[in-house]
Amino acid sequence: MRQAMHVLKVRAKRRGLLEITAEVRQWVGSQSIASGMLTLFCRHTSASLLIQENAAPAVRRDLEKFFDELAPEGAGLYEHDDEGPDDMPAHLKTALTQVQLSVPVMDGRLMSGTWQGIYLFEHRDQPSSREIVLHLAGE
Amino acid sequence: MRQAMHVLKVRAKRRGLLEITAEVRQWVGSQSIASGMLTLFCRHTSASLLIQENAAPAVRRDLEKFFDELAPEGAGLYEHDDEGPDDMPAHLKTALTQVQLSVPVMDGRLMSGTWQGIYLFEHRDQPSSREIVLHLAGE
Amino acid sequence: MRQAMHVLKVRAKRRGLLEITAEVRQWVGSQSIASGMLTLFCRHTSASLLIQENAAPAVRRDLEKFFDELAPEGAGLYEHDDEGPDDMPAHLKTALTQVQLSVPVMDGRLMSGTWQGIYLFEHRDQPSSREIVLHLAGE
Repeated sequence: MRQAMHVLKVRAKRRGLLEITAEVRQWVGSQSIASGMLTLFCRHTSASLLIQENAAPAVRRDLEKFFDELAPEGAGLYEHDDEGPDDMPAHLKTALTQVQLSVPVMDGRLMSGTWQGIYLFEHRDQPSSREIVLHLAGE
Repeated sequence: MRQAMHVLKVRAKRRGLLEITAEVRQWVGSQSIASGMLTLFCRHTSASLLIQENAAPAVRRDLEKFFDELAPEGAGLYEHDDEGPDDMPAHLKTALTQVQLSVPVMDGRLMSGTWQGIYLFEHRDQPSSREIVLHLAGE
Repeated sequence: MRQAMHVLKVRAKRRGLLEITAEVRQWVGSQSIASGMLTLFCRHTSASLLIQENAAPAVRRDLEKFFDELAPEGAGLYEHDDEGPDDMPAHLKTALTQVQLSVPVMDGRLMSGTWQGIYLFEHRDQPSSREIVLHLAGE
């Protein structure tokens, strides 16, 4: 078994779900490891990773709305608000989802399902550039 | 280090938690890799994976009830309802739990705790067959 | 590629977030594997793992408060209350977070971000000793 690592840099235009499946697939396809395990790791505490439906845009809008309501913004709701009203909700949404995801790879292709897309879930209103570590181990 | 991969197909009889520990354990035990890391990956967006208490059935009933209330069904709650009232709640419950889990393996046995069972969390009322990729890497 | 495994035992003094980054970093640093993937696995159903902000203590207090309100204690709320009012909320908080986390390692250092700390999220009022399996695979 061998391994390869890469830091993918992405920047969402707005708060919400940004699909990164194509960028991930491209890097995996360019490696000499055909079968194994791909792990993605998001190096941030106010953005996370999510595998979700990639067909209907309404699913993503409902998802964003659900998390906005589950971890709402609001004066006096949180002790920590150093960076604005979206600061603490961003940490909560990150805690409720994942910063790490692993996806099996076979014959150079991600084994994710037909309807599964890989998303960066950006939780800040003014997105900065985000680093996602990609690690592939296999043969 | 070597690796092995397998697609486990399971079908829940109803919505809720279906224990798959025995099926997973059986596959791991039949591999020639004694120690390493087992990764499970659920190839769907309306079913997920959960490690939870395997002793008291009441825990599972409370868990199902909690997620039903956290991501409720209801006319007008969601923009996306193409496949019925359980459609969008299924995506939300999947987002709140995991589609991927890794469990260490030592001496051919899962290193999960005494009370930890591995569950498919089926979120649709009319369950279809689900594919869970099992990947074991070790030696 | 090679692998190493270790069981880290930790005990929180109280319910809530206990940072374990230093203990994890120390074990990783003592291994002869410089680059690879570290996986942490919590062998319990009433304690979980979380990567979160390690700078502002207020973030952790808000996180604990949020999960306490999302999965509240209360007479009659749950069918399962064998071990007291914090029993079922502990299982729910575990389900909403993770029992497994993987973090890439490069040149002997965790690739987690500047502000990311690794935490045991203890959900019981009377914490017992917790076992976290550490597994490092790489070269």
